[in-house]
Amino acid sequence: MDKQKSLISPVVYPGSFDPLTFGHIDIIKRAKKLFGKVIVAVGSPSSKKFLFSVDERVKIIKNFFKNEKNIEVEILNGLLVDFVKKKRAKAIIRGIRAVSDFEYEFQMAWMNRKLHPEVEVIFLLPSEKYAYLSSSLVKEIAFLKGNLKGLVPDFIIKKIRKKIG
Amino acid sequence: MDKQKSLISPVVYPGSFDPLTFGHIDIIKRAKKLFGKVIVAVGSPSSKKFLFSVDERVKIIKNFFKNEKNIEVEILNGLLVDFVKKKRAKAIIRGIRAVSDFEYEFQMAWMNRKLHPEVEVIFLLPSEKYAYLSSSLVKEIAFLKGNLKGLVPDFIIKKIRKKIG
Amino acid sequence: MDKQKSLISPVVYPGSFDPLTFGHIDIIKRAKKLFGKVIVAVGSPSSKKFLFSVDERVKIIKNFFKNEKNIEVEILNGLLVDFVKKKRAKAIIRGIRAVSDFEYEFQMAWMNRKLHPEVEVIFLLPSEKYAYLSSSLVKEIAFLKGNLKGLVPDFIIKKIRKKIG
Amino acid sequence: MDKQKSLISPVVYPGSFDPLTFGHIDIIKRAKKLFGKVIVAVGSPSSKKFLFSVDERVKIIKNFFKNEKNIEVEILNGLLVDFVKKKRAKAIIRGIRAVSDFEYEFQMAWMNRKLHPEVEVIFLLPSEKYAYLSSSLVKEIAFLKGNLKGLVPDFIIKKIRKKIG
Amino acid sequence: MDKQKSLISPVVYPGSFDPLTFGHIDIIKRAKKLFGKVIVAVGSPSSKKFLFSVDERVKIIKNFFKNEKNIEVEILNGLLVDFVKKKRAKAIIRGIRAVSDFEYEFQMAWMNRKLHPEVEVIFLLPSEKYAYLSSSLVKEIAFLKGNLKGLVPDFIIKKIRKKIG
Amino acid sequence: MDKQKSLISPVVYPGSFDPLTFGHIDIIKRAKKLFGKVIVAVGSPSSKKFLFSVDERVKIIKNFFKNEKNIEVEILNGLLVDFVKKKRAKAIIRGIRAVSDFEYEFQMAWMNRKLHPEVEVIFLLPSEKYAYLSSSLVKEIAFLKGNLKGLVPDFIIKKIRKKIG
Repeated sequence: MDKQKSLISPVVYPGSFDPLTFGHIDIIKRAKKLFGKVIVAVGSPSSKKFLFSVDERVKIIKNFFKNEKNIEVEILNGLLVDFVKKKRAKAIIRGIRAVSDFEYEFQMAWMNRKLHPEVEVIFLLPSEKYAYLSSSLVKEIAFLKGNLKGLVPDFIIKKIRKKIG
Repeated sequence: MDKQKSLISPVVYPGSFDPLTFGHIDIIKRAKKLFGKVIVAVGSPSSKKFLFSVDERVKIIKNFFKNEKNIEVEILNGLLVDFVKKKRAKAIIRGIRAVSDFEYEFQMAWMNRKLHPEVEVIFLLPSEKYAYLSSSLVKEIAFLKGNLKGLVPDFIIKKIRKKIG
Repeated sequence: MDKQKSLISPVVYPGSFDPLTFGHIDIIKRAKKLFGKVIVAVGSPSSKKFLFSVDERVKIIKNFFKNEKNIEVEILNGLLVDFVKKKRAKAIIRGIRAVSDFEYEFQMAWMNRKLHPEVEVIFLLPSEKYAYLSSSLVKEIAFLKGNLKGLVPDFIIKKIRKKIG
Repeated sequence: MDKQKSLISPVVYPGSFDPLTFGHIDIIKRAKKLFGKVIVAVGSPSSKKFLFSVDERVKIIKNFFKNEKNIEVEILNGLLVDFVKKKRAKAIIRGIRAVSDFEYEFQMAWMNRKLHPEVEVIFLLPSEKYAYLSSSLVKEIAFLKGNLKGLVPDFIIKKIRKKIG
Repeated sequence: MDKQKSLISPVVYPGSFDPLTFGHIDIIKRAKKLFGKVIVAVGSPSSKKFLFSVDERVKIIKNFFKNEKNIEVEILNGLLVDFVKKKRAKAIIRGIRAVSDFEYEFQMAWMNRKLHPEVEVIFLLPSEKYAYLSSSLVKEIAFLKGNLKGLVPDFIIKKIRKKIG
Repeated sequence: MDKQKSLISPVVYPGSFDPLTFGHIDIIKRAKKLFGKVIVAVGSPSSKKFLFSVDERVKIIKNFFKNEKNIEVEILNGLLVDFVKKKRAKAIIRGIRAVSDFEYEFQMAWMNRKLHPEVEVIFLLPSEKYAYLSSSLVKEIAFLKGNLKGLVPDFIIKKIRKKIG
C-alpha cells in the first residue's frame, strides 16, 4: 500500500493560508479528487505580515485534514518550482476567483515556466459560493468583530478570536 | 419637517476620504438626488496610513456640505453592514471608475450580502471628468508639489499644504 | 391611491429579455424594493435575432409579474434616454455580473449622459447564484436539449420547448 | 493493454477547431501528459459559420495525432456535460490565453456545474508563444493571403489554401 | 519641400471608420503632432456590414482633412503589416479606450509582430471626452433617430441621415 | 552634430528600475528606434522600499547603455509632467504588459493630461517574452535564491547577489 501510494505523483497547492478558508478547502478537495494526492505548501513571503506563524498555519491545516489520506501539509521554503521538483509533483494547483487574480496568476505561471519548463500550472474554479472569499477579507471582518461563521471552520474562528482578543 | 426627514430611509456612502475629492462630491450629490438622504461614513482601516485624522476628515466633509440638507457625516467603527442596519439605511452607495475597482467592489458586496442579505449595494458612475481621480493620486501630486486645483476644493488644498509644508 | 402611485418616480430596467431569466427577475425585485416602481423596457435591436417576438416577450414578463404592483412592462422604441424622460423616471437600472458587462455598460452610461446629462444609471448586483446566467446561455442549452430547470420560470421553459420543438 | 487503457479516466477538450492551431496542439499535449488520455470533442454550434465541415475538422485532427496513443477525436452533439458523463471523463480541459477568454470560461464552467455538479473544469495555460493565436485570427490572415507558417501545421495550411483558393 | 516631406517616415492608422468620429479625429491629430505624417488606412473586413462603402468612407475622411498637410487616406487591401512595409511606415497607431479594446489590440499586435517583427504598434489615448465613443454606438443612435451632435462632424451627420432616411 | 542632436525632441521613460530588467531594456530600445532619443527618468516614490539607492540605479542603467548614443539617464524629482516640460520632451513612454497595468496607466495618463494637456503618453508593447517580467518578481526570486539568468543582465545579477548576500 505504501508502495502504491508512492506511485501517485502529487500536485502542489501553494499559499499563505492565513487563515485556511472554506475556499481553500474547496480547492484542496477538488484537487484530491482529480489527482489523487495533494501537498499543501505553506509559504511565508517576508513582505507580508501574518496573523498566524507558519508553524501554526501548518498545524491548523493538518488538524483540519487529519482524517483524510493523501493530503500532506509542508512548509514552503525557497522557490516554488524547486519544491515541486523535489516532490516529483506533476503540477501546481491554483484556485482562481476573479479576473485580477488571474492576471497575477498568469505572470507567476509564465515565470515558473521560464525557470522550469516542465512544471505545469493548473487552474481550478472554486464553488461560486466562495467566489468572494479570501484570507484578507476574513481578517478584515475579524478585526471589526464581525461574524466569521461559514467563512472558515469553527475551530479556526476560535483561534482567530484568541489571537485578536 | 423633522418628522418627514426621519421618514426618509438614507443610503450610506462609506470611504476613507483622505482627502475628500471632487469625485467623491460628485457621487454624494448624485446619491442625494436619487435617494433623498446620504450618510457619509468615514472609516479608518488600521492597515492604512492617513494624512488627516478621522476627526479632521469628518470636519472637512461637514464643512464642505454645511449648507446642504440631508447629508450627514459620521465616523465608521466596526463592520459597514452593522452601521447600515443601525441607521436603517436602504443601501450602500459605491462609486466605480474602473474595472479594477469593480472586482474589489464585487467581492465586498457579495461578502456584505453573506453577512446581511438584506443590505443592498448600489453602484453609481461619477462624471467622466473624475474617472481618473482618487485620493491617493491627490496625495502623490501634493507630495511632489504639483497643482491640486480642480481635483479637491480650495479650502482642502490649503489644509493639505499645511500638513505637508 | 392612484394619485399616490403617480407620485413615485419609477426606474427603467431595459433589456431584450429573450427570454426572461431568474437573473432578470432578481434585479427587477431588488429595484422595486429600492425604488418603489420599475418599468421593464423590452427592446428589439434590429441587429439581433430573437427567439420570441417583442410582443411575446412583453406578454411573458407581464404574466410573470401579474400579481405584483408597481412593475410595468412596455416596448422600448427609439432611444432609451428619450423613453426615460417621457416616463419621468429617475434612473436607468442595469444588472452587472462580470467585468466585460461592465465595460460595455460604462460606454452606454457615458453615452447616455452625453445625450441627456440628467439621466442617471444605477448598477445593481444580482445574487451570486445568477452570476453565470444570461439569456444567450439559456438559448444555447435549449437548442442542445439541456435542462433549463432553475434558470428560467417553468412556464417559460414550456414556451421555449414549443418554439424549438 | 486494452484493459489498462480502459482504466484511465480521460479528460475532454471541447472546441470548434476551425482550424486546429499550434495553440490547440500545445494544450492537447499538456493535457495528455497530465491526465493520460484526452478526447478532443469537435463541436459545430449552429450560430457560427465554418471554413471546414465538422467531418473535415475531425479528420484533420485525427490525421495530425495519428501516431499518438490516447488522443481520441469525436464529434460533439448535444450538451458538453452529457458528453463528459457518457465518456466517464473526469474533467473538461480549457486553454485560457486572455482575460476576456476567462470571463466567458467562468460563465460556461459555472453553468456546467449547475447542470452537472460532479463535472470539473480545468484551465491550462498555453505556451506564451501561442498567447496571441486563435482560429479566427488564422482565418483572417488566410483570407488576406498572409503567411500562416508557424500558426498551424503545414498540411493544414495546404487545406486552407485549397478552401479559400 | 516635396523631398523633405518624403523623408518623414509616416505612421499608419488603420480602421473601418464607418463613420469617422471625433474620437478618430482626436487620435489622428495626436499622431500627426507626434510623428509628422499619418496615413489613415480604411479597411473593409468581409465579416462586417457597412453603412458607407469603402470609397465613401475614404472620401469623407479626405474631405474632413482637406486643409491639413501630411494626413493621407488610402484603402487597405490585404494584410496590415504588408501595407505598413510598402509605405515604409515606422509604426501602426491604435487608439485605446477600454480594457476590452486592449486585449484584442494585444492579440493583433503580437500577431503582427510574428508576421513582421520590425513593425511596431503604438497605443495612444484619446481625450477622455471620447472614451465612450465608437462608430457602432454612433450608428445605433442614428438608427434610433437620436442626436449625433458632438459625436461626428456636422457634414457626416447629414450623410448619415441621407443613408438612413 | 551636437546642434543636430539638440534638435531631436526626446521622449521620457519614467520608472523605478529597481532593478533594470530585460523588459525595460526592450522598451528603451523600441522607444529609441521610434523617437531617436530617450531620457530614462529614475524615480524614488517615498512610499516604496528599494533594493538599490536611486544613485545606484542611475549608475547601473548608465553602465548598461554606455555605448549607446541618445539614451540619457536622470533622477526624477518632482512631478513627471514638470520634468517632461523642462526637457522639452514630446511624450512619456510607458510599457504595458497586462490589463491591470493598463488601468493604472490610464489613470496616470489622464491625470497628467489634466495637469499639462500638451504632454502626450504613448504605450509600447514589450516582446511577449517579457510579458511576465517585473522588477518585483525579480526581487522575489532573488530573495528565494532562484536563478535570475535571462531576466536581468549578468552584471546586475552580481550586484543583486552582493546586496542580498
